[in-house]
Amino acid sequence: MLAAAMDIGGTKTIIALVDNKGSIINKRQIKTNTYDYKAHFDCCIKLMEECLSEHFLNKQDILGLGINLPGMVNSTSGLLYHAPFAGWRNVKVIDYFSKQTGLKNIYIENDVNSCAEGEMFFGNTSGNFLWITVSTGIGGAVVVNNKLIFGENNCAGEIGHVKVEYENPRKCSCGQFGCTEAQASGTAINTLFKELIHKDSSYIDKLKQFDLNPDASGCAFLARLKDEECIKIFKTCGLYLGRALSTAANLLNPKEIFIGGGVSLSFDLIIDEIQKQIKENTIPQCSVVTVKPTALGYEAALLAAASLVFRRNK
Amino acid sequence: MLAAAMDIGGTKTIIALVDNKGSIINKRQIKTNTYDYKAHFDCCIKLMEECLSEHFLNKQDILGLGINLPGMVNSTSGLLYHAPFAGWRNVKVIDYFSKQTGLKNIYIENDVNSCAEGEMFFGNTSGNFLWITVSTGIGGAVVVNNKLIFGENNCAGEIGHVKVEYENPRKCSCGQFGCTEAQASGTAINTLFKELIHKDSSYIDKLKQFDLNPDASGCAFLARLKDEECIKIFKTCGLYLGRALSTAANLLNPKEIFIGGGVSLSFDLIIDEIQKQIKENTIPQCSVVTVKPTALGYEAALLAAASLVFRRNK
Repeated sequence: MLAAAMDIGGTKTIIALVDNKGSIINKRQIKTNTYDYKAHFDCCIKLMEECLSEHFLNKQDILGLGINLPGMVNSTSGLLYHAPFAGWRNVKVIDYFSKQTGLKNIYIENDVNSCAEGEMFFGNTSGNFLWITVSTGIGGAVVVNNKLIFGENNCAGEIGHVKVEYENPRKCSCGQFGCTEAQASGTAINTLFKELIHKDSSYIDKLKQFDLNPDASGCAFLARLKDEECIKIFKTCGLYLGRALSTAANLLNPKEIFIGGGVSLSFDLIIDEIQKQIKENTIPQCSVVTVKPTALGYEAALLAAASLVFRRNK
Repeated sequence: MLAAAMDIGGTKTIIALVDNKGSIINKRQIKTNTYDYKAHFDCCIKLMEECLSEHFLNKQDILGLGINLPGMVNSTSGLLYHAPFAGWRNVKVIDYFSKQTGLKNIYIENDVNSCAEGEMFFGNTSGNFLWITVSTGIGGAVVVNNKLIFGENNCAGEIGHVKVEYENPRKCSCGQFGCTEAQASGTAINTLFKELIHKDSSYIDKLKQFDLNPDASGCAFLARLKDEECIKIFKTCGLYLGRALSTAANLLNPKEIFIGGGVSLSFDLIIDEIQKQIKENTIPQCSVVTVKPTALGYEAALLAAASLVFRRNK
């Protein structure tokens, strides 16, 4: 069984065909056209059709289309309320795609909620878990008894804006202070690493030596070479993530917490500090939570978009 | 319609008959016998029967019996896992009461979860809310779509142990540091007030003058007389409660937060600071949450025990 999947992010969009075992059959990647969503959606459809025809398939051969969107979504009505990065507001996404493609089984979801759905379909979960994307920003999704929690305004799971530093907080892109996103996201790691380079110019030579960028992945490379200062940056990230996850564990008592997003590639550099924080800050019955990287790997969000189709058409 | 209700706490137990409008028909209060739960349960049953016979009623005239317990409960199997204050473990509560009384409709619940049920039955809720008891300790219950969330080990809602102070934390009875319970419970207010009296002996005269105890209610009395230092103590309590509630609002996006327990009697002294914290620490879509005192008043927990019966026998 095949599904079409579109992972529409604030910066890039991936279009793919995915089978129900989680294999990506064909794939395209483009920059997200934030100026004109209709033009962008049309382009996505064209690339989906290209993916199909390269495999001698047509739209009748797929079970449906799953779409991740970077913002607040009402998955039932098919409406994208607001995508802050793209600037889109009140877009009837399902209506548009179904008119342009003639497809009936079209599903949309917020990108992080979608990842939680993907973990349920392709991974192995207890059905009581938290999914957290640690990337440019930090987003979260809460699942209770195999169902996503949406909250009153479709905004549950905002662990990125839980406060984890009150005394010396960094300013967050949301305008508030001390949010997990400001203290522990990929962007926060970039900032900490740049501050380190600024303070100690020997890092400029190290970057040149290993052909690294002054960003989170450059920092991770050096941390794995046992650079104490770079290790410390990831420990700081783990400390703040650990504080946020402890809070979530006390409130929701989940069985698992799955971490995805770019920073999950540095899971080995943050997990010890996360575990330490959970042990210190969570009551014993809640501290038994298991923290692990997503089973879906780097393409988690794309597989997740496909899972929207498979979960609803079992 | 009448239900029998027992609110068994770590210190005292109240036994009552309650009607389905929330009126208490007859009531007894005793000290909780923590040494011998069977003797205590037998005593509760005797007092329930007294309440009935005083109104020329017998057990066939009540719809059932609802019991709050101060600890971890499995309401489905009728088991009390552990009541830390009383020291009871693995007690088959429903079995015991049904053998001793012959009643069929017996329901048990953790005391804070029960309050959330009571708010749904006797109060006016959206079905997406948080209930928090601020008393000697602090407990919480999470309701999503009119259902309690239990979590993996029946321990969801532990907002009392969410950390709200990392730099200068007070030690909590749980052994950890900076928990909401350690910073903002009735016990914390008692401590802050005692520290104030110790620092400034003029408060000893004030206590004598108004015949007050050196506790949270004494502090509230003076705060209402515009004593700046006592006002500050309640602001501190509001600040820490506000931090904890902001976190819960970001994670769960509830419509309402209900506050019960002794400290809710000082709601007027804490609400401004709570609102301020929520505005500063919660994303806009989640900050629209309404924080209010329970509609059930001082007897919230007792009415809640009765609601366990009414909600399941509508």
